[in-house]
Amino acid sequence: MSESARKIINDPVYGFITIDHPLLFDLLGQPCYQRLRRIHQMALAHLVYPGAVHTRFHHSLGAYHLMCLSLAELKGKGTPIDPPEEVGAKVAILLHDIGHGPFSHALERLLVESVPHETISRLLMESLNRQLDGRLETALRIFSSDYPKKFLHQLVSSQLDVDRMDYLSRDSFYTGVHEGVIGYDRILKMLTVHQGELMVEEKGIYSIEKFLVARRLMHWQVYLHKTVLSAENLLVKIILRARMLLRSGTPLQASPALLFFMGHSVTREDFGANPELLELFCKLDDYDLITAVKAWTDHPDPVLSLLCNWLVNRRLYRTELSFHPFGEERVSQLKKQWSEILGFGENEMEFFVFTGTASNHTYNSEDERILILFKDGQVRDISSLENALINNSLSNPIKKFYICYPK
Amino acid sequence: MSESARKIINDPVYGFITIDHPLLFDLLGQPCYQRLRRIHQMALAHLVYPGAVHTRFHHSLGAYHLMCLSLAELKGKGTPIDPPEEVGAKVAILLHDIGHGPFSHALERLLVESVPHETISRLLMESLNRQLDGRLETALRIFSSDYPKKFLHQLVSSQLDVDRMDYLSRDSFYTGVHEGVIGYDRILKMLTVHQGELMVEEKGIYSIEKFLVARRLMHWQVYLHKTVLSAENLLVKIILRARMLLRSGTPLQASPALLFFMGHSVTREDFGANPELLELFCKLDDYDLITAVKAWTDHPDPVLSLLCNWLVNRRLYRTELSFHPFGEERVSQLKKQWSEILGFGENEMEFFVFTGTASNHTYNSEDERILILFKDGQVRDISSLENALINNSLSNPIKKFYICYPK
Amino acid sequence: MSESARKIINDPVYGFITIDHPLLFDLLGQPCYQRLRRIHQMALAHLVYPGAVHTRFHHSLGAYHLMCLSLAELKGKGTPIDPPEEVGAKVAILLHDIGHGPFSHALERLLVESVPHETISRLLMESLNRQLDGRLETALRIFSSDYPKKFLHQLVSSQLDVDRMDYLSRDSFYTGVHEGVIGYDRILKMLTVHQGELMVEEKGIYSIEKFLVARRLMHWQVYLHKTVLSAENLLVKIILRARMLLRSGTPLQASPALLFFMGHSVTREDFGANPELLELFCKLDDYDLITAVKAWTDHPDPVLSLLCNWLVNRRLYRTELSFHPFGEERVSQLKKQWSEILGFGENEMEFFVFTGTASNHTYNSEDERILILFKDGQVRDISSLENALINNSLSNPIKKFYICYPK
Amino acid sequence: MSESARKIINDPVYGFITIDHPLLFDLLGQPCYQRLRRIHQMALAHLVYPGAVHTRFHHSLGAYHLMCLSLAELKGKGTPIDPPEEVGAKVAILLHDIGHGPFSHALERLLVESVPHETISRLLMESLNRQLDGRLETALRIFSSDYPKKFLHQLVSSQLDVDRMDYLSRDSFYTGVHEGVIGYDRILKMLTVHQGELMVEEKGIYSIEKFLVARRLMHWQVYLHKTVLSAENLLVKIILRARMLLRSGTPLQASPALLFFMGHSVTREDFGANPELLELFCKLDDYDLITAVKAWTDHPDPVLSLLCNWLVNRRLYRTELSFHPFGEERVSQLKKQWSEILGFGENEMEFFVFTGTASNHTYNSEDERILILFKDGQVRDISSLENALINNSLSNPIKKFYICYPK
Repeated sequence: MSESARKIINDPVYGFITIDHPLLFDLLGQPCYQRLRRIHQMALAHLVYPGAVHTRFHHSLGAYHLMCLSLAELKGKGTPIDPPEEVGAKVAILLHDIGHGPFSHALERLLVESVPHETISRLLMESLNRQLDGRLETALRIFSSDYPKKFLHQLVSSQLDVDRMDYLSRDSFYTGVHEGVIGYDRILKMLTVHQGELMVEEKGIYSIEKFLVARRLMHWQVYLHKTVLSAENLLVKIILRARMLLRSGTPLQASPALLFFMGHSVTREDFGANPELLELFCKLDDYDLITAVKAWTDHPDPVLSLLCNWLVNRRLYRTELSFHPFGEERVSQLKKQWSEILGFGENEMEFFVFTGTASNHTYNSEDERILILFKDGQVRDISSLENALINNSLSNPIKKFYICYPK
Repeated sequence: MSESARKIINDPVYGFITIDHPLLFDLLGQPCYQRLRRIHQMALAHLVYPGAVHTRFHHSLGAYHLMCLSLAELKGKGTPIDPPEEVGAKVAILLHDIGHGPFSHALERLLVESVPHETISRLLMESLNRQLDGRLETALRIFSSDYPKKFLHQLVSSQLDVDRMDYLSRDSFYTGVHEGVIGYDRILKMLTVHQGELMVEEKGIYSIEKFLVARRLMHWQVYLHKTVLSAENLLVKIILRARMLLRSGTPLQASPALLFFMGHSVTREDFGANPELLELFCKLDDYDLITAVKAWTDHPDPVLSLLCNWLVNRRLYRTELSFHPFGEERVSQLKKQWSEILGFGENEMEFFVFTGTASNHTYNSEDERILILFKDGQVRDISSLENALINNSLSNPIKKFYICYPK
Repeated sequence: MSESARKIINDPVYGFITIDHPLLFDLLGQPCYQRLRRIHQMALAHLVYPGAVHTRFHHSLGAYHLMCLSLAELKGKGTPIDPPEEVGAKVAILLHDIGHGPFSHALERLLVESVPHETISRLLMESLNRQLDGRLETALRIFSSDYPKKFLHQLVSSQLDVDRMDYLSRDSFYTGVHEGVIGYDRILKMLTVHQGELMVEEKGIYSIEKFLVARRLMHWQVYLHKTVLSAENLLVKIILRARMLLRSGTPLQASPALLFFMGHSVTREDFGANPELLELFCKLDDYDLITAVKAWTDHPDPVLSLLCNWLVNRRLYRTELSFHPFGEERVSQLKKQWSEILGFGENEMEFFVFTGTASNHTYNSEDERILILFKDGQVRDISSLENALINNSLSNPIKKFYICYPK
Repeated sequence: MSESARKIINDPVYGFITIDHPLLFDLLGQPCYQRLRRIHQMALAHLVYPGAVHTRFHHSLGAYHLMCLSLAELKGKGTPIDPPEEVGAKVAILLHDIGHGPFSHALERLLVESVPHETISRLLMESLNRQLDGRLETALRIFSSDYPKKFLHQLVSSQLDVDRMDYLSRDSFYTGVHEGVIGYDRILKMLTVHQGELMVEEKGIYSIEKFLVARRLMHWQVYLHKTVLSAENLLVKIILRARMLLRSGTPLQASPALLFFMGHSVTREDFGANPELLELFCKLDDYDLITAVKAWTDHPDPVLSLLCNWLVNRRLYRTELSFHPFGEERVSQLKKQWSEILGFGENEMEFFVFTGTASNHTYNSEDERILILFKDGQVRDISSLENALINNSLSNPIKKFYICYPK
């Protein structure tokens, strides 16, 4: 892509994605956006689904494409959206994920303990806005839900936003889990704006049901697959061990940016006070982590090197999932057993035997709802329909318990 | 396809279908099987979904293909299935629909009032068995659920049979309703036999949920689409009117077979007593019906010719759907209004203004259930799981009411 | 589809097709357009590729969809196209095939001996134009290449028109011959208008090569498949035999329209002089033919009934293909042999043993060429490039000879 | 994947890949095989085609899957292949790429100057064979074309091997260049063994033409896309600059393995004499390179840091392609111009302005040919057929010249 007037980008999911506004070209060329090429969309899920190596860069482009289609559809139905709003919504979705760190959700709140990625995304957008003479003003307001036309923010972030539509489509495509495929094209054609809010036309009900069920399937079958949980927990334990060593003065080989964020607990205020921190954050990506893990396979600390060897060679924890918590005795017994086999003391066993929980809503009717607009003008929540598949029982979060221990 | 040792047939849904047994070649060449080329799989749904013009012939081949895959999978898991059983199951599914008449379900119980198509399929199989020296014996027993290995019949006919898997896959493919796509390949890989019954392995739960939701979507969005209901009701009204005229002595142009079945009420016993009736039945297909309807556009009876003109030129009834029955007043009022416009008397208005019901189960837990085999040996019905999407409320049949009247 | 402002139609090939102009709704509702639902796009190819049962109706809609995309693309690149021209081009492609008779190409010049289908399409458009108060004027001029912006006609009919792009895409989709798939989406994005003519941008060269090779493959592997040739020749022989009987006074059961066109040699002038002939022509479709063939399986003429039985039950001629003509001796010998087996005399053998030729161009550089527009402004024919795959030798028509005789 | 009896792996390209032999599980678990997860299949092509981030690991699994299908097909046609041969062929293809270094072809002969990757693959297989008690003996002989059944080697490596079939299918899938899709399923069904050699049945001719044309398209449109050339040349220049600095004593931050291979010219003999070198080689992957490039963006050498910044932020050379060589004056003039802009001396300009060539055969009839087996027993090369698309002129390599300089 160069700075020409109009570029098309091949996308195996949608065919072609078109970029046709100078501001979009300026943003695509930013280092903080190019960096998303080096962050896996699905963290370590590719250890189970080898095709799932796509990036946050690609996901952001895909969500942008669905935003273009949605806006065209809504305009076609008579919803007034003027050109600056259109560019604003496109920019907001293009940049929605720039605040993600390495391995995104898998390490959320670990490298930057107290600042969620959405906040970092906003900080980075504000910084870009300053660099680009305020051209991101509308995008920022839409992103922050501080713009009168509420539906624009809902397209960026809600139960039925283009972010989810893209990641479900893309993740099911790249994993090869065809059952996760949603009818994004039909859903887009069913979107409408009523009383300023994004809604779905009556005849789109079954498509929405299908969308929610596909999401449920992707959560349990893919995102929370027990081997994926196992791999991501292993990476977390590696970071925790390395951080412990680092903070207690043991030398560690790693990139300067990674060492800094492992060594310090950076806060929202720190980012505000020190603009260089954001720049340093933008140097971090999956490559820093994996290269460090590879280097640490030879580290003198036997816990760290063992865990790193396991990750590099895909020797993961054995994981069990259950609807009921695992008892303390089970944990103690496993720790005892593996302490003897591995020759590590009690403290070290935290890195080898542990429990955790995973949870997921099929539909969250309290938070942001999916509204159906009936032909007669009625508006109803999808969970309150006659013959609803998506009923209240599915609105409760489901919690599963897991235990990990060595193989 | 000739009588060679092995043939491959292109199928847009599955790639290639392989035929590799002499008995299968003999059956494919039978006139009663070739006739299925002239019966639409989805009756008049193509008036809404123009791609849905595929045939019962193609569906039967597709279901046969899935049977081949299922049997290979089960054998690979150690279920004993010997070659005659294998051929028997393949033959049973290949022929499961040969008893369908023109426009299959849309006209079921209309041309042959008292004999369901399954019975005619069995009669035709018995007749073929006699012609082919008893080589269909095992197939017949499997088809009639009269064979010790119950799972073979369940593959042919149950909540999770290859018939449904093919028609859902094929119908969603040809209509272009991608949301109806099921993960047939994954479901097949999750099938297992336990205690002689067909079951699904634990990790296939989400695929089954997806399958049931896709079926639900296809029912309401496609099979019971109000315009499809409208077209199929129009065809039914045409047959009823024509039959009324015929039985009262008015001459009608139509093929001899169609005239015979419109003029007589054939029973199960008649078919048994008179083998020529089966032969005559096999001369009937969608072409007889459509050509007759085209001819009747010029019939002197103004009701018949008007209805036929509507169907030929796709001028269908207006149809409304509701969860509640339509009141008598609404019907009377519409009849009155249209009687004036069209100039027909009260008796004739039955053909122009009428109500009906459509119903569908998402899952029928009383009839034939879908059983899940857990790793610990437990067997549970899919509707009784923790966190079940498919719960009891979905086991109740949903009934919708409709009213049709002219546009 | 009703007469609403905007309708979307599901299409398995392209996803959704949008209809959004009142004139288009008026045309879709015409009996002569609805009739295309009853004409197979690929005649009898479904006897080899069971999925290939799609219709001329669907193809016309698909070509219309590609026209919409092409026009949007060209306008996006700055080519001036005003709204009436846009509607004109869309109407021209929507109606381009309405002059096709039953089984289209397979029976071309047989039921209406001296008038090609393009002429009948134009006559029907002129008739519709009169009915619709001249609203088809621009469409007619574009269709007839009598409109100043030549590229509009080229989109309707040329080496790279949307007609071919649709039928190649659709036929490969429905046959399941994935190798015939062309990159229609990329080709459309590479189209441009230069000096009033339709051209392809330089970077589209490989897509065009691919398109021509896919077309070549579809011709030899599908359209001229020897079993397809066999089936279509069988249908031709049936018509010839029935016509001979009819013209010599033997009664034949068939629809009035079919009897008329078999009994008379209608000319271009006849259509002009007698408007009812066009109306009668519009009553003909595949259903008339197949129902007649089914009826004739019991005809007293043993040649006709035998041929009809073969077609109905798919017992086709054995066909051999060769680059060299079949000698007279081979033909005589086969006639002699089969005359004895079948018990027919010499005259009748013309219906059972015969030869023919099939031919195809990969690229026809003399007729209408595919022009490439280089970045430096140069315009060159695709067959004259350096390193051309599509060279002069491929511009020559390839002729294959075939012989048919009973199995 | 654990060491169970049978595992299925989701693959978006083929659906499911089955692993069912203990030796295969042992090999998948090897660090040198897991390492392929960290090597991109298409080097830097993802800078143009963002979806193309798939790995050598995935490609090897895919080629293995096609090998399974091919062997099943050939056995089904009666070619004798016993179980050890079957496992041997599967192992040979699974491991065919383990000798690839970081960014595979893009850096071939750069990190290990004098040993091609095929040789390293063989060395690694020999080493695995020793570890695994000689269980790779047959695989090694097949890989080295030292096994009597020549066709087994041809499936691993020839003009029509499963390696090419997988990479064309997979690369077109992940880039979204649908035009590169080949009909691998049909080609596999057309394979046959005659006189000990792999051949294609007559009716597969058009599929093979299509395969060769798809390959041609992928070469010029994707693999040799000028922006891809630009990115890969940039990476090469970075390695050359870093190596020059390293060898002249400038300190460089990089992993130990990368420093070693940049600092030494390792030969075939060195690998033989010192087994630890192979182990060290197996520590190298794309992550070492990219992390080093990121680190070098701050290197004191201004040439190195500038080039690295360009690559990290995707600011690539401008590249022009031509059928004719670029003259010396053009190069000198550009060097002069950019020397002034960038402020570097003449020596440094080699890293900024340079020329090169790219070449490709559509079909190489001298090397390994594609043979067609006709029904009458004749065997002919695909380039010598009547009406050949693939003729002699396409057998000559096509050479294109390119020039790169800063934007």
